[in-house]
Amino acid sequence: MEKVFASVITIGDELLIGQVIDTNSAWIAQELNKTGILVKHRVAVGDVWEDIWQALDEESKRASLVIITGGLGPTADDITKPLLCKYFDGKMIVHQPTLDYITHLFEKVLKRPMIERNAKQAEVPDTCTVLKNERGTAPGMLFQKNGTVFVSLPGVPHEMKWLMTNRFLPMVPELFKTGFVVHRTLLTAGVGESFLAEQIKDIEEALPAHIKLAYLPNYGMVRLRLSAFGFDKESLEKEVDHHFGLLKERTKENLVIGEDLSLEQVVGKLLKEKGKTLATAESCTGGYIAHLLTSHPGSSAYFTGSVVSYDNKIKQKILQVPDSVLNTVGAVSEETVLQMARSVQQIMDTDYSIAVSGIMGPDGGTDQKPVGMVWIAVTSRTHAEAKIFNFRFDRRRNIELTASHALNLLRIFINENR
Amino acid sequence: MEKVFASVITIGDELLIGQVIDTNSAWIAQELNKTGILVKHRVAVGDVWEDIWQALDEESKRASLVIITGGLGPTADDITKPLLCKYFDGKMIVHQPTLDYITHLFEKVLKRPMIERNAKQAEVPDTCTVLKNERGTAPGMLFQKNGTVFVSLPGVPHEMKWLMTNRFLPMVPELFKTGFVVHRTLLTAGVGESFLAEQIKDIEEALPAHIKLAYLPNYGMVRLRLSAFGFDKESLEKEVDHHFGLLKERTKENLVIGEDLSLEQVVGKLLKEKGKTLATAESCTGGYIAHLLTSHPGSSAYFTGSVVSYDNKIKQKILQVPDSVLNTVGAVSEETVLQMARSVQQIMDTDYSIAVSGIMGPDGGTDQKPVGMVWIAVTSRTHAEAKIFNFRFDRRRNIELTASHALNLLRIFINENR
Repeated sequence: MEKVFASVITIGDELLIGQVIDTNSAWIAQELNKTGILVKHRVAVGDVWEDIWQALDEESKRASLVIITGGLGPTADDITKPLLCKYFDGKMIVHQPTLDYITHLFEKVLKRPMIERNAKQAEVPDTCTVLKNERGTAPGMLFQKNGTVFVSLPGVPHEMKWLMTNRFLPMVPELFKTGFVVHRTLLTAGVGESFLAEQIKDIEEALPAHIKLAYLPNYGMVRLRLSAFGFDKESLEKEVDHHFGLLKERTKENLVIGEDLSLEQVVGKLLKEKGKTLATAESCTGGYIAHLLTSHPGSSAYFTGSVVSYDNKIKQKILQVPDSVLNTVGAVSEETVLQMARSVQQIMDTDYSIAVSGIMGPDGGTDQKPVGMVWIAVTSRTHAEAKIFNFRFDRRRNIELTASHALNLLRIFINENR
Repeated sequence: MEKVFASVITIGDELLIGQVIDTNSAWIAQELNKTGILVKHRVAVGDVWEDIWQALDEESKRASLVIITGGLGPTADDITKPLLCKYFDGKMIVHQPTLDYITHLFEKVLKRPMIERNAKQAEVPDTCTVLKNERGTAPGMLFQKNGTVFVSLPGVPHEMKWLMTNRFLPMVPELFKTGFVVHRTLLTAGVGESFLAEQIKDIEEALPAHIKLAYLPNYGMVRLRLSAFGFDKESLEKEVDHHFGLLKERTKENLVIGEDLSLEQVVGKLLKEKGKTLATAESCTGGYIAHLLTSHPGSSAYFTGSVVSYDNKIKQKILQVPDSVLNTVGAVSEETVLQMARSVQQIMDTDYSIAVSGIMGPDGGTDQKPVGMVWIAVTSRTHAEAKIFNFRFDRRRNIELTASHALNLLRIFINENR
């Protein structure tokens, strides 16, 4: 057994001019990691013949697995398939099962006439193993050359994921003899990266060479991740768990959870365990907190809903914030968020509520209430708390920071049995 | 003047194991593009000395500008700065303005004791030009070697963006003599990529070599983008506009807008122009449509708010969906979404409303109502319409598809003056 390294090549001009954010690479890396394959290098190139060719040459020297995504569409800017045909000394042949599938797709599902361009999608180089695509018209292709495995997949995320999961990943044990990768992640809140590093310095320095520690700061929180590689899974896990235990013990004052979960998942887990429910009243976050909570399956067990009161009239009408409050201290105030939180909790009959009101920018700030100023309230059936924050970043980051601080405030509130 | 090519190197193990999605690269590419610099290549490497060194060697051969992000933190996994010091034959010196800023930051803003590790952030190789960071403790650094410019920036997105915008981009005209890049993008809905390609085949074939056409399919919509490079800005724009006009004319039946806008921006623009308002009642999307609308500045002019009725009790209590409807045809039905839409429009007193109810998965599907089945309603003060969709993908994609189809339904509804 040996370490198996992979490279990921993503193809498409849209990646290089920044029109599209590459989410495929992260997903591919995660999935390969689970099989013990380590992504060592990632490259993005445009729809340019020489650049793709060169990337294939270079990456195959670095890695024994090269995953290629994109450039397989039916339009003229997609040149990957003819290029692969030439690169792997093949000639184009029709892959009958794919042609049958495409024909079926157009006749029965899309109910549109199939054109020549669509049928051409069924052509593949005769030097490849076809990974039949049941989510689209572009088949996946697997090639082998000089000891390297090359896998070409469409760039459309849900097609790529389907082909990886159902076609390529099941082939990995046959193709590679690899070791194991073990990750352990913990989430901390309320402490800076530097301070944390000082706190755990001796633990970090005592780590063996095959276990690496990474710091991942994000939105006022820091994740610590141990990554280890080895060939005996059981002893590797035991070893990593030992070091991970030391980290958890040392950071316990700021520890949110010893798993790789997002904050909304941590809050959801907490609510589920306690059999409690939550509603939100959102002004400046415009439904983002509700979106975060409901993006995870099973959230209906603890999340009832939200009143997004973007307009002040809605704060008055549905959330019963009195005119007198809005006209004196205003919408971004302690009184307003507390009333929003209490009202939504009452309307939705929940155990807890979150309410937020603030100025996200770029406009709308004043001297007294600058962009980034946010009031956050959390309530239970017996307690209520409101806090002010000043973020002062751009709109997107202010929204994200407001959401993460609101969720963290609730988490602490619940843990304190308030 | 000549074409100036750039490479982007992102550094960090978290990118290679897929824990973090790289949003920096897309943003950097967009900003460089505006100055006429073309990103030709993008690479991600881990926190590994040899890999970073090799990437610097390789990318400097390809590009006259190499942007490096990440690896500048205060912790032991961040090795980029010592590496750059060695790579560019420098020795570490203290950059006094940065040290003053860090000291100020800890004393006045963070109000935490500054530790040795923080002060070390102010050290830089004496062979660099410092790009002073006013958003964090890691300074940006600019090096020049063998005709290539290297810029090293922190990986934290808001710090990187601030340094690019305020420090590096203003230096571009001095450093490079470059041409101009012109992009034009249009958005279509309701037509497949292949069919569109047939429809515009002759226009595509007649494009000169310096103008490229790209197809960008996403969520049932296809973007067409023309990208051109040249040295005479005025004549280039005129030329691109000519071809763009042909594309718009040819695709007019499916044309949403001739700009690079998201669908929620198109809807927002339409509402603003007409002086109309919108509210949403969201079940299965959990506030995602409201979040999309409010993620753009100025949305308070047309968006009043949302009732996220995740729990059926909220559909009854706030949105007046009768028990009899929920108990017979159920929450995912034409009757339910129409009532949700009408109620939220009335409660929030808006000109239009959107309501959605469906099963996003992975659980909760039945034979009659499978995962991916969604009812969407839109209403105006005089009309109402409901449509059923079947998406059948994963949860995240189902939520995104529901949002984009709901927004598109409203767009058509408004354009038909209903």
